[in-house]
Amino acid sequence: MTKIAVIPGDGIGQEVIAEAQKVLALALPGYEATEYDLGARRYNRNGEILPDSVLSELDEHDAILLGAIGDPTVPPGVLERGLLLKLRFELDQYVNLRPSRLYPGAATPLADVKPGDIDFVVVREGTEGLYTGAGGNLHVNSAAEVATEESLNTRYGTERVIRDAFERARRRRGHLTLVHKTNVLIHAGGLWKRTFDDVAAEYPDVTTEYQHVDAAAMFLVNRPHTFDVIVTDNLFGDILTDIAAAVTGGIGLAATGSINPDHQHPSTFEPVHGSAPDIAGQGIADPVAAISSTALLLDHLGRADAAAAVNAAVERELGSREAGASIRTSEVGDRVAADVAGQLS
Amino acid sequence: MTKIAVIPGDGIGQEVIAEAQKVLALALPGYEATEYDLGARRYNRNGEILPDSVLSELDEHDAILLGAIGDPTVPPGVLERGLLLKLRFELDQYVNLRPSRLYPGAATPLADVKPGDIDFVVVREGTEGLYTGAGGNLHVNSAAEVATEESLNTRYGTERVIRDAFERARRRRGHLTLVHKTNVLIHAGGLWKRTFDDVAAEYPDVTTEYQHVDAAAMFLVNRPHTFDVIVTDNLFGDILTDIAAAVTGGIGLAATGSINPDHQHPSTFEPVHGSAPDIAGQGIADPVAAISSTALLLDHLGRADAAAAVNAAVERELGSREAGASIRTSEVGDRVAADVAGQLS
Ligand SMILES: CC(C)[C@H](C(=O)O)[C@@H](O)C(=O)O
Ligand SMILES: CC(C)[C@H](C(=O)O)[C@@H](O)C(=O)O
Repeated sequence: MTKIAVIPGDGIGQEVIAEAQKVLALALPGYEATEYDLGARRYNRNGEILPDSVLSELDEHDAILLGAIGDPTVPPGVLERGLLLKLRFELDQYVNLRPSRLYPGAATPLADVKPGDIDFVVVREGTEGLYTGAGGNLHVNSAAEVATEESLNTRYGTERVIRDAFERARRRRGHLTLVHKTNVLIHAGGLWKRTFDDVAAEYPDVTTEYQHVDAAAMFLVNRPHTFDVIVTDNLFGDILTDIAAAVTGGIGLAATGSINPDHQHPSTFEPVHGSAPDIAGQGIADPVAAISSTALLLDHLGRADAAAAVNAAVERELGSREAGASIRTSEVGDRVAADVAGQLS
Repeated sequence: MTKIAVIPGDGIGQEVIAEAQKVLALALPGYEATEYDLGARRYNRNGEILPDSVLSELDEHDAILLGAIGDPTVPPGVLERGLLLKLRFELDQYVNLRPSRLYPGAATPLADVKPGDIDFVVVREGTEGLYTGAGGNLHVNSAAEVATEESLNTRYGTERVIRDAFERARRRRGHLTLVHKTNVLIHAGGLWKRTFDDVAAEYPDVTTEYQHVDAAAMFLVNRPHTFDVIVTDNLFGDILTDIAAAVTGGIGLAATGSINPDHQHPSTFEPVHGSAPDIAGQGIADPVAAISSTALLLDHLGRADAAAAVNAAVERELGSREAGASIRTSEVGDRVAADVAGQLS
């Protein structure tokens, strides 16, 4: 029995997760869902963000499905660090995976691209770099204030994520791009580049390339079709994946996984979009990103066929839409679920 | 007599700087140019990058005009750190200025944008952050290797660049966006945000906004027209300016200034493009970015009229080109110079 922890979260999170679960019920029949009330509502109610006991319970599951976290009533950073990043660090989710595809009908700001032209994944490191919180402030609020922010990187941490990226490249078109800033960040960049070159020797079937982060950011805009798999550090990955979302038509359609590839802890799957309080409760949020995140979840749990069925159904749903037409959240879920049911029956 | 140090540099640097000087001769009549042989050629000849004596001489000038630095024969990072970044740090060029405009005829990858739609400047901090070189490596080349990279930020350094950005916003459309990652980089982000808010109180006529760097990277692609002035740290600025170059049609047209606004040291002006060794020596490199960098130089030296004339001439030159037609470096320089001469006579 596959055990999934479901964190609907805030705003439209609840609505889109309901549709994702409709689809998951068909793609992963009989899975056991346990709902966890985490996010802005709980924080505003009793100040709790991610109690240790809840973290332990989550850790007992096969995967976590998350809707969206956040609300304007909560100070910025509190839930991001206390919940989202804490899950990544505590559950050792060292692969932050962001597939980027240009879907039919997606509102890309780019000229001269068509569905299929853009199809790459970013493998972002999830447990190191500038995300550890290391650093400090001295003489706060005085003219003498100094603030430091420290990027911590280990051979252990870089090697495992780079290896994962090579494995994914091997299963795709066989091309891997390392992105860093080795000409300026010589300490961390040196470690990343040497580790990359070492691991590359084990994957002679994968072609490799190195790009500085500034160049990569530009190439994602003016030649995104040249990428297959990108591997990069935590902060560069944060930025590059949002550019990727932009060129493929916005974060509204993107899904992501915070993955522990070794299955020692559950991985988290979620839509990239936020809780969108402005449209919450109206039944008009697009659930395709949440549904796509179930495909990543299925793939991670070894159900490649079911994952492919969900992806195909999402692609058909998007391809069938009239440009600019409004959608109803539950109708989208019903259509995609019916399509998946048809494929898997 | 205005004294300009000219560093033509490598590859097409020499060719485009010759055209920039044609224009400068008209816009800044009687300026005194002293040429400095720095870059890959000198490094390959005798290992010298930026001798202290040369740095002292450069420091005696009113401004530095630079072509392009770099060649595949030099290990990556050597000239970047030893020459380009060293100039920024030693000459206290704390404002790295990158105007981004969509010129007529420019090959933007974006659909539905027309010249004039994109017009913003990025004010990037140039002397702090992750660019100081602070950090190190332990247990190099072993499984236990650790690498750190430290971002160093001061109230002094953030306040002066933020103030400069407010001044520029006031002279433009009056809107300033701070970009950082305050929800994760709480130490440096906190300093930047508090400093920004403090300085903002002195500029009630400037509207302000804050964006996380990942969101800003996305917005630069899918709504670049919403930006007027952006202020950000050294590394974020490095990335954002390349996205800006991408959406406005590539780094081929962009110019940049590494500026000491207080005129205690000379500022450096240069095209953003590289030395392009593949097309060097053929007389086909486009000199408009180098020419545009003279407009930044003129503006910095208080010659706003001459700067405007150069910008107008560049705009006319680009507007008059047939899409895809090839250009001759010296002919472009002649045309733009004639246009500038006509305006200033
Ligand atoms: C919410 C925030 C902490 C997070 C990050 O920076 O990783 C988000 O931007 C993301 O990309 O998942
Ligand atoms: C060459 C390199 C060191 C430099 C930087 O990172 O600042 C360049 O990318 C730039 O933007 O001027």
